Amino acid sequence: MDKRATLAGWLTTGTTPSASDEHFAPSNIALCKYWGKRDQQLNLPVNASLSVSLGHLGTHTRLVPIDYPADEIWLNGEKLVPSAPFCQRISAFLDLFRNPDHCHFRVTTRNSIPTAAGLASSASGFAALALAVNDSFALQLSKEQLSVVARLGSGSACRSIFSGFVEWQMGHREDGLDSHALALQNRWPGLCIGLIKVDASVKATDSRSGMQRTVETAHLYQSWPLQAASDLQQLKQAITAQDFELLGRTAEHNALSMHATMLASWPPLVYWQPDSLKMMHKIWKLRQDGLPIYFTMDAGPNLKLLFESTSLEEVMRQFPDMEVIQPFGDV
Amino acid sequence: MDKRATLAGWLTTGTTPSASDEHFAPSNIALCKYWGKRDQQLNLPVNASLSVSLGHLGTHTRLVPIDYPADEIWLNGEKLVPSAPFCQRISAFLDLFRNPDHCHFRVTTRNSIPTAAGLASSASGFAALALAVNDSFALQLSKEQLSVVARLGSGSACRSIFSGFVEWQMGHREDGLDSHALALQNRWPGLCIGLIKVDASVKATDSRSGMQRTVETAHLYQSWPLQAASDLQQLKQAITAQDFELLGRTAEHNALSMHATMLASWPPLVYWQPDSLKMMHKIWKLRQDGLPIYFTMDAGPNLKLLFESTSLEEVMRQFPDMEVIQPFGDV
Repeated sequence: MDKRATLAGWLTTGTTPSASDEHFAPSNIALCKYWGKRDQQLNLPVNASLSVSLGHLGTHTRLVPIDYPADEIWLNGEKLVPSAPFCQRISAFLDLFRNPDHCHFRVTTRNSIPTAAGLASSASGFAALALAVNDSFALQLSKEQLSVVARLGSGSACRSIFSGFVEWQMGHREDGLDSHALALQNRWPGLCIGLIKVDASVKATDSRSGMQRTVETAHLYQSWPLQAASDLQQLKQAITAQDFELLGRTAEHNALSMHATMLASWPPLVYWQPDSLKMMHKIWKLRQDGLPIYFTMDAGPNLKLLFESTSLEEVMRQFPDMEVIQPFGDV
Repeated sequence: MDKRATLAGWLTTGTTPSASDEHFAPSNIALCKYWGKRDQQLNLPVNASLSVSLGHLGTHTRLVPIDYPADEIWLNGEKLVPSAPFCQRISAFLDLFRNPDHCHFRVTTRNSIPTAAGLASSASGFAALALAVNDSFALQLSKEQLSVVARLGSGSACRSIFSGFVEWQMGHREDGLDSHALALQNRWPGLCIGLIKVDASVKATDSRSGMQRTVETAHLYQSWPLQAASDLQQLKQAITAQDFELLGRTAEHNALSMHATMLASWPPLVYWQPDSLKMMHKIWKLRQDGLPIYFTMDAGPNLKLLFESTSLEEVMRQFPDMEVIQPFGDV
């Protein structure tokens, strides 16, 4: 099934787009990872996932219709060349909603993600773009529907439509209309995320291809969906009970298991650098010595520490270069 | 079932042991790993495995009955204190064959494994000890039976009874009498193993406990037995066809998958050091550039390179500190 066909019922034909407001969507960090697609085209996942949105860190995007034969895309104040992969992904996304022969936009997008963070911007980017499209075409979509739309741009973008803790329900429909995120009600003031940058260079294998290689070549991947389902339940229990040890342990185990499926792929998919491993050993040592600190990692070499604000001072002392995010605001 | 009970049919009661000759058993390196036990007591494996024995590198052991109230154990020319875990394991093994109240031995054992190799000595150690016991008690066991006996000392010791390529058939009997190694007929002159030492310090978690933790806590371990079965078939095919690329790829994939199951355990079991990862990245880069070189790793931070003698010069140039073993003799 193609993307446009799945959206057919939500679009009104003949609407002339207007200039949108500036829309914001937060970055998110998954505590139970999205790893593996059951539909490549629609970004439908093999497993449900759970993330925390990063408050005011994310992407701001505005759409303005222009009378010009192509889109004009500005990122962080710079105009990009139309042939850039980034521009082509955005234009292809806009094509889902317009007649690309006579409708183009100036897309102005700005990331408020710390530059040194090693955070992906495609999640917040496509979520903000979905919000701007909804405004420009006056689609009046619900948040769940916007989450479906954002997912068509980038899988994890469906979670960036919401703030706080967010669950992406995998769904079961072939058209994916039931595969969208939902906000969990619980908040966790005091939860901290520390960004540890090991390497900011571009990855040799993007997550999309990495995921695909894992699904196709790693025997061990067969056990991943069940583990993810179990981890998701544990995380929800931890969030309800505000049980930090359970949250941290489950998130770290989930991330390492995801990296384990990569390692078991062929050719091996190892995003870690020697310094990533050095940081892990340091964290395990600190934890052994009594500091309640865990980590998660995405498809890259950087670590994201998980701890509570009561440990902030000690964690800062141990990792002076770390950037700290408090997803539920400063305590 | 206890160890001694499984051996009952093979032992003759009342035999007075005599001094044995010096017996040798080689070290072995698994290309398809033994990882996980279905019986802790008898060292019965969850999966069949395949190794290559390391020619003249291994353990030499001799047993001499002594009139003394305890065993006297000499390792590499030094007399050990009886409370050392090494001595206790050896004495417990000897207890399977003797009346420990009035029968003790001087055990003289010597490893010809390169000291910097990072190779386990328990496999060759218990295999050589099994050979010496067979001699001393005049048991006249077959090689398959000796392999069963060695397995009771240390799982992978059952493979060190044979030279060349060796398969450990997992067996299905509860008493484990069908769980022993067999020699494969094919040889592979020109096959080289390069030992890369990253760290020779004692492991924080021994393989026995590591294996157990993986089986108990890693969801992904569920897929391991099927992968190992498939890898074993691929390796046998590679050995028959002398297809080095298939051999190397399968061995490396198998080792990384084993490490993946460790990584997916809780608490995470990571034997790698930053330098292990540095070496892996170097090997992958060299392979990408056309050098046919692969690696395997056991439950530790060191790497064992796999290559053919045609690449020996270039591999030596890239890894000047490497120690090279040619399991089928120099070509």
